[in-house]
Amino acid sequence: MSARYLLPYAPDAIGGLPVGLDALVWDGDGPVPPDAELREVEFFCLPYMRHAAALPLIGRLPSLKVVQTLTAGMDDVLPHVPDGVVACNARGLHDASTAELAVTLVLASLRGVPHFTRLQDRGRWQQEFHESLADKTVLILGYGSIGRALAARLEPFECEVVRVARRARPDEGVHGTEELTALLPSADVVVLLTPLTPESRHLVDAGFLARMKDGALLVNVARGPVVDTRALLAELTAQRLRAALDVTDPEPLPADHPLWHAPGVLITPHVGGPSSAFLPRAKRTLRRQVLRFENGEPLAPGH
Amino acid sequence: MSARYLLPYAPDAIGGLPVGLDALVWDGDGPVPPDAELREVEFFCLPYMRHAAALPLIGRLPSLKVVQTLTAGMDDVLPHVPDGVVACNARGLHDASTAELAVTLVLASLRGVPHFTRLQDRGRWQQEFHESLADKTVLILGYGSIGRALAARLEPFECEVVRVARRARPDEGVHGTEELTALLPSADVVVLLTPLTPESRHLVDAGFLARMKDGALLVNVARGPVVDTRALLAELTAQRLRAALDVTDPEPLPADHPLWHAPGVLITPHVGGPSSAFLPRAKRTLRRQVLRFENGEPLAPGH
Repeated sequence: MSARYLLPYAPDAIGGLPVGLDALVWDGDGPVPPDAELREVEFFCLPYMRHAAALPLIGRLPSLKVVQTLTAGMDDVLPHVPDGVVACNARGLHDASTAELAVTLVLASLRGVPHFTRLQDRGRWQQEFHESLADKTVLILGYGSIGRALAARLEPFECEVVRVARRARPDEGVHGTEELTALLPSADVVVLLTPLTPESRHLVDAGFLARMKDGALLVNVARGPVVDTRALLAELTAQRLRAALDVTDPEPLPADHPLWHAPGVLITPHVGGPSSAFLPRAKRTLRRQVLRFENGEPLAPGH
Repeated sequence: MSARYLLPYAPDAIGGLPVGLDALVWDGDGPVPPDAELREVEFFCLPYMRHAAALPLIGRLPSLKVVQTLTAGMDDVLPHVPDGVVACNARGLHDASTAELAVTLVLASLRGVPHFTRLQDRGRWQQEFHESLADKTVLILGYGSIGRALAARLEPFECEVVRVARRARPDEGVHGTEELTALLPSADVVVLLTPLTPESRHLVDAGFLARMKDGALLVNVARGPVVDTRALLAELTAQRLRAALDVTDPEPLPADHPLWHAPGVLITPHVGGPSSAFLPRAKRTLRRQVLRFENGEPLAPGH
């Protein structure tokens, strides 16, 4: 009656798995399987974008060994993972989609797409100069797997890319955060990719923003609370900085929040991951992890 | 009283030119210099985006040898250039800016930036799946200098780039237009970069559009009349194709034109060239051409 795997896709849909894999399918939308069927589940892959429904289930799996997410961030999952259970995020899965959205937000903001969309809605043809990414300096903060994908996409645009991570990695040209204070004033665009941790919460505060140059663009595709929303709102309202935010704090952003209508801000509703790039890469990630688990190999990567 | 050069920028602002270069400066905004000052002008660089004011001046320069534009397209200039006068376009100058706008239009359309801008204006957080450029096939039609810049920018996005030009260039992986009919149905995105010529006018007609796959995106950063607007409007209204247009026919698009409000269209007002990337590259182009003319070297490139 019970199965070893609880997965959001049927093994056939994932492809490349052993025939007859002992798996139960739950996509997060239908009813939760009864406890009797969950007794032997050792490997649970959380349905993507259904965390609210899936998190309570973790505690109902007495044989659980592995919690696999299809998200890059695990900040909301980790508190639910019991001791002794391995938690694996989907490192790499969202590189293409999230890096692509970061470039989209940078280009759309610099080249004036929101502005021209509003002119289009009023039937107004109004040719004007806008900023180009060419000749700009883009600072990537939180340079890891997604950061590498972002840098690769930015490099052909004739811009300069500055890489910053928690620890300097000179062989990769990555600066440590201790150099951030010195590097910030020369960046035209700052892209946040840092995971949400106690240290990164409100990393982008009034002091951080004050070091950014006049007219610079802050792009957040990481997690909302990495930015102090009140401090950012002050800079936007003063029209000293611009922002493009795929994540906000609070999230979802309430309809009456002043951030929606602050000058120079473009907001997308946390869509770095959910794109057509997701499903094929999710299946590849899941296939790799299940095969490793089947073969008793170490799972990669943990959080 | 007269000068050899009529330029839109002072030689000092251009930089790197011989001291005391015999030049008159006219940026297209102020009054046109009197005929007496124009008598000996041999090299005339048209002010950028001031063609309407500059074109009649070409016929008033009796010593004229070279007309230099700061635009890539010369379709509107050539009819004004007398026999025996060399006309040079600004090949290469707009590569960065125009290729960048093409990527901007592709990404903004696929990832839903106009849609999210409208949701933002209504204070609505509505997470949803959108298309990604990853895994898509992008066909570049009119693969030349800007096309190469575009392909370089697209390649890191994990998409496939198909190159088409008037004549096949197998060594560069470029297909000839005779293969277009076979290639069109597999393209998710078609980017138009072809110059406007009698052959390219309405190249994108009902038959061309009919061969594009359902839901495909047409991007025009070339010239408006390359597309048959009525045929495109029919496909947009049927919601079978989407479009992102930086150029239109007619242009400027009148306020009451149905294209403004067709479903699935993003319109920017011919801003492929005018961006912060322009001025430094315009000065470099002009410096090179003036130095060649000073040294009696062949100018590059003609039209």
